[in-house]
Amino acid sequence: MNNNNQSGDGLWQYLFSPRNVAMVGASDVPGSWGFNIMRTLLHANTRKTYPVNPSHPVVMGMNTFKSVLDIPDELDLAVIAVPAARVPQVMRDCVQKRVKSAIVISGGFSETGEEGKQLEKEVIEIARQGGIRFIGPNTMGHSNAHARFSILGFTGKVFAGPVSFAAQSGNMGSRIMQLGNAQGVGFSKFVCTGNEASIRLEDYLEFYSNDEDTKVITFYIEGLREARRFLKLAKETTRRKPIVVMKSGSTKGAQAAARSHTGAMAGSDEVYTAAFRQAGVIRAETEDEVADVLTGLVKQPLPRGNRIGILTMGGGYGVVTSEAMEKDGFQLAKLSQKTLNKLDSLLPARWSHGNPVDLAGMDTMGDDTVMQCLEAILEDNGVDAMISLIGLAKSGQMMPPGLRAPDKDVTEARDNRLMEISKRAMQMGKPILSVGHIPALMPEKQSEDRFSDNFALFSGPQRMSRALRHMLWYRRYLNEVNSVQD
Amino acid sequence: MNNNNQSGDGLWQYLFSPRNVAMVGASDVPGSWGFNIMRTLLHANTRKTYPVNPSHPVVMGMNTFKSVLDIPDELDLAVIAVPAARVPQVMRDCVQKRVKSAIVISGGFSETGEEGKQLEKEVIEIARQGGIRFIGPNTMGHSNAHARFSILGFTGKVFAGPVSFAAQSGNMGSRIMQLGNAQGVGFSKFVCTGNEASIRLEDYLEFYSNDEDTKVITFYIEGLREARRFLKLAKETTRRKPIVVMKSGSTKGAQAAARSHTGAMAGSDEVYTAAFRQAGVIRAETEDEVADVLTGLVKQPLPRGNRIGILTMGGGYGVVTSEAMEKDGFQLAKLSQKTLNKLDSLLPARWSHGNPVDLAGMDTMGDDTVMQCLEAILEDNGVDAMISLIGLAKSGQMMPPGLRAPDKDVTEARDNRLMEISKRAMQMGKPILSVGHIPALMPEKQSEDRFSDNFALFSGPQRMSRALRHMLWYRRYLNEVNSVQD
Repeated sequence: MNNNNQSGDGLWQYLFSPRNVAMVGASDVPGSWGFNIMRTLLHANTRKTYPVNPSHPVVMGMNTFKSVLDIPDELDLAVIAVPAARVPQVMRDCVQKRVKSAIVISGGFSETGEEGKQLEKEVIEIARQGGIRFIGPNTMGHSNAHARFSILGFTGKVFAGPVSFAAQSGNMGSRIMQLGNAQGVGFSKFVCTGNEASIRLEDYLEFYSNDEDTKVITFYIEGLREARRFLKLAKETTRRKPIVVMKSGSTKGAQAAARSHTGAMAGSDEVYTAAFRQAGVIRAETEDEVADVLTGLVKQPLPRGNRIGILTMGGGYGVVTSEAMEKDGFQLAKLSQKTLNKLDSLLPARWSHGNPVDLAGMDTMGDDTVMQCLEAILEDNGVDAMISLIGLAKSGQMMPPGLRAPDKDVTEARDNRLMEISKRAMQMGKPILSVGHIPALMPEKQSEDRFSDNFALFSGPQRMSRALRHMLWYRRYLNEVNSVQD
Repeated sequence: MNNNNQSGDGLWQYLFSPRNVAMVGASDVPGSWGFNIMRTLLHANTRKTYPVNPSHPVVMGMNTFKSVLDIPDELDLAVIAVPAARVPQVMRDCVQKRVKSAIVISGGFSETGEEGKQLEKEVIEIARQGGIRFIGPNTMGHSNAHARFSILGFTGKVFAGPVSFAAQSGNMGSRIMQLGNAQGVGFSKFVCTGNEASIRLEDYLEFYSNDEDTKVITFYIEGLREARRFLKLAKETTRRKPIVVMKSGSTKGAQAAARSHTGAMAGSDEVYTAAFRQAGVIRAETEDEVADVLTGLVKQPLPRGNRIGILTMGGGYGVVTSEAMEKDGFQLAKLSQKTLNKLDSLLPARWSHGNPVDLAGMDTMGDDTVMQCLEAILEDNGVDAMISLIGLAKSGQMMPPGLRAPDKDVTEARDNRLMEISKRAMQMGKPILSVGHIPALMPEKQSEDRFSDNFALFSGPQRMSRALRHMLWYRRYLNEVNSVQD
């Protein structure tokens, strides 16, 4: 009775790039899951959608089907959003219809106690016998920006990019994607894993590990159901692509909250920390930190060492940044005499004559001198990574509020120079990280350019430093792994 | 030879609310200090401005004076932005003219080494003998939003409010004000203290301590010149109004950077930490943290204890918040049976049945049920502080990207209810802190309402928790001080 959607590439294709979708529980009631998902399916997708509702013949102006069994088509994906008690029957219908894959949005299963646990077991058994693997239950849905597919109820646009993401929480997932998008980090696959009754977090790791569109993997984890398998897969994967994890649930109240959320057991925090480290997994503490380290990983090379050069438009910012970075294990590079001479020739006599290089109140908008200073520091052999406290991006992408826009020919010359410097830094394997105005969680208003450019922009020096610390740690992990391998 | 502007209220009046300003070094060169300050004076101020420039008879379309001596008016404030070497002569002219107060913008003094130090001494001596006290040198300027006065070169509007601020760095100062403004925190007086040759940070503390418009005081400090005096004044002040300090320069490189920045000696970090604690001064580590704790202090009462109630629209967010807050010393309140019954009557059966109260995917926009839940938790005697992971603000003030706006009559009912709850919380002395979308560093686009309302909104749960931790610490400090006093 097993069919070929039980495992392998087929399953992932059906789930993340279905040709059509049956929406079981389609609804006209604003705010309901069946309404929100229908809205997304109809607005954002090009998939053929079949609404299913036994009691309402018309939903959102579309004729509904009483059951998936009535749909005159082969079905790739069934999205199930009906009350928990009705899910077993819907799953039976899906089995009979030979639906290729499914996602159970509905809550009311193992996360609610013993009764829900029994109901979940029943659904698992029906699906297993019928050869259907499914996402959830108790999930907010999934998406694949590269295939322009989404059933996510939240309508903020998610921009496509190289990060694939699985989250044991829908709202933490959407939040991290919003934060990433604001920094120009795009996402490929996303899934809110729910109770993981059928497909588990470890399965998504295996999928992402082998997925060509995925260059960086990230997880929000409350508890692992197959910790050993996760770590084995992770260790193999991190040799090829970085994994960034946010793991919560280290305190008593948080563990209790996690149990009632997705039924996950949080486990000892120290054990997780040690295991992640051994597997080369980057662990971030907060959702901001996830967004920051993704920004660094997606947009810049890993640093070779801990010697930093800092360019600042004001002294105080240089002091604060030096402090944050020294605490994170970096050291201020001693600039060579050649570099100092070059800077002497570029800057007014009052400049700081050392690292941090303080422009001391020079006008920095559209000024080529800033670019020349950046280049001079970057070329210094004693500098492993370049920090600019003047935000770097194409002109117009991050104009701070209230500043006048410089002339177009000035900005063009500056932008060209900046692109050259950026390219040169990539060749040298030196990351450039800058601090500046992040245009908040409003990706709609940002240009698509932000998702293809290589500017790693952070909202504050401490956040930037923390991201670079993770990048350096990962670089050193890779060095160690590779030297053992040799 | 001493005149009455040497000390007392007169000095502060002349500096922070001058009737007129002489701008020595007024310039037509975009990006120069003399240009930026003139632009601010002409655009943002209602003060009579006298541009002084010995070599250009016209600047920005205004006739200039060759010297302050030529100005046919009594002068309250001289703003000096000429090359360092010319400052002594300008100061002599100011003395002869009996200018009431001054600020020396120019750099090139003690921050640059021995020669600059001598020059600074010369200026100090001229001013001292002539009875002029001055801000700087090596400063970005100062402002007083309540008097609609500013000479700050940056043109982003600063909104008026109850916080007065002195910063040993202009760019850290402007950054912290921008961050505060984004969260609806307005500022009264601001000064970038520069090298503090004449007026020192401790003087501003004394001024702010007695200033009626100032309800909260904040400092960015690299090093104190009169640490004992600061601590004595601070200890006396914190009984009446809170002081929030960001102190940088705890690492070697940062200390060196601070020396070349404003000539400040950073001193031992441990000593500062202990001294601040004893004086009841709240110490924040980063500029974000300053903005967050100011938000809490300005908008909400101090919590009486550490028992928190959490309302969340999704489980994951509740888990992450519980964890952050438990790490910060808070505990999840055990809700009373009465509260649980009330919530049972309001929420669908799948709700979390405990604290955090998880609405589990209910539609939260414009829904009165959310308000009723908020109220139920707030009224519980076991709850000292209320955390809402649904952002609280008047409808339209913080609409997250992509969400549809609810109907007007729904939002009005919700807003009225919210205002009632907010008022009730104030009466009970229970702070309400919420997490939601902060509309970035774009105060221009925000409604003035944000600066008068009482909604303390934070961009993430960890940042919110940290702010409440400082508020609880300060509350306990005050309790201790008051019990000793009794």
